[in-house]
Amino acid sequence: MRILGIDCGEERTGYGVIESDGRRHRMLAAGVIRTDPTAPLSLRLKEIAGGLRQVIATYAPQEAAIEEVFCAGSAKTTLRLAHVRGVALLSAAEAGLPVGEYSPLEVKTSVVGYGRAQKRQVKLMVRSLLSLAEPPASDDAADALAVAICHATRQPVRACLERER
Amino acid sequence: MRILGIDCGEERTGYGVIESDGRRHRMLAAGVIRTDPTAPLSLRLKEIAGGLRQVIATYAPQEAAIEEVFCAGSAKTTLRLAHVRGVALLSAAEAGLPVGEYSPLEVKTSVVGYGRAQKRQVKLMVRSLLSLAEPPASDDAADALAVAICHATRQPVRACLERER
Repeated sequence: MRILGIDCGEERTGYGVIESDGRRHRMLAAGVIRTDPTAPLSLRLKEIAGGLRQVIATYAPQEAAIEEVFCAGSAKTTLRLAHVRGVALLSAAEAGLPVGEYSPLEVKTSVVGYGRAQKRQVKLMVRSLLSLAEPPASDDAADALAVAICHATRQPVRACLERER
Repeated sequence: MRILGIDCGEERTGYGVIESDGRRHRMLAAGVIRTDPTAPLSLRLKEIAGGLRQVIATYAPQEAAIEEVFCAGSAKTTLRLAHVRGVALLSAAEAGLPVGEYSPLEVKTSVVGYGRAQKRQVKLMVRSLLSLAEPPASDDAADALAVAICHATRQPVRACLERER
């Protein structure tokens, strides 16, 4: 299964594509879509949508994973983050990708085994789980890879539970 | 000038297209994009983006206008509204439309002359300003027309101020 993880941000949106069988994971790509800080929000959203579309076209993921919005910082920051997240969900849906949504707690628990893990610990575990020679260069790409790994490990459990219903 | 007004909502997104010279306004279209309440958010966003794209392709507006998000109801409702708004801003930007953003206060002041006007008063004034035989059938379409009218009356002032800089 090929999974696209997205870490939304108005200035920097991280992405990571992994291949996984639910136990072993391999990184195919990771990076950051940066937007022009002087541009109006509508044009920044267009840059993010265009960047995600390009990643999807290049790496052809089958599913997408994204963190739920949490109230980080001011109400204004959180609201703008939700705008970006709307665009990320749309980009996945328009490419026909089912989207898994996870809380920050779920992502950290699934990657580090501890819901209150720090950014540094997440980065170390992402490096280890993907057998990378170096940790991901950016925090945003690392977070995107983390949510993709979370989806990879959770998805078999969810699918199993749905079959049992 | 042909203006598209958008009133965002997860269940119902209103739209209204007007032709205006800044003083006299004429309605070209108004309606509501409804989404399937049982569908996941990503697919509802896809329905909204598809609907807006169709309106833009049919009526070829030159500019767009949209209300700023205000904290209405629960934090969850407000956050989901911001997702929809992100998709609406993107739809306008991808069609090359500049977007005017207005607070609810600005819209009401510009249409009714009173910032705390009620929905019913906004509807009455929209009907009057557009010389409609009947008030708009839905509140969402009326709100979309109101923000388009606000943009039509404000835009000449803004353009003038920018020239004076």
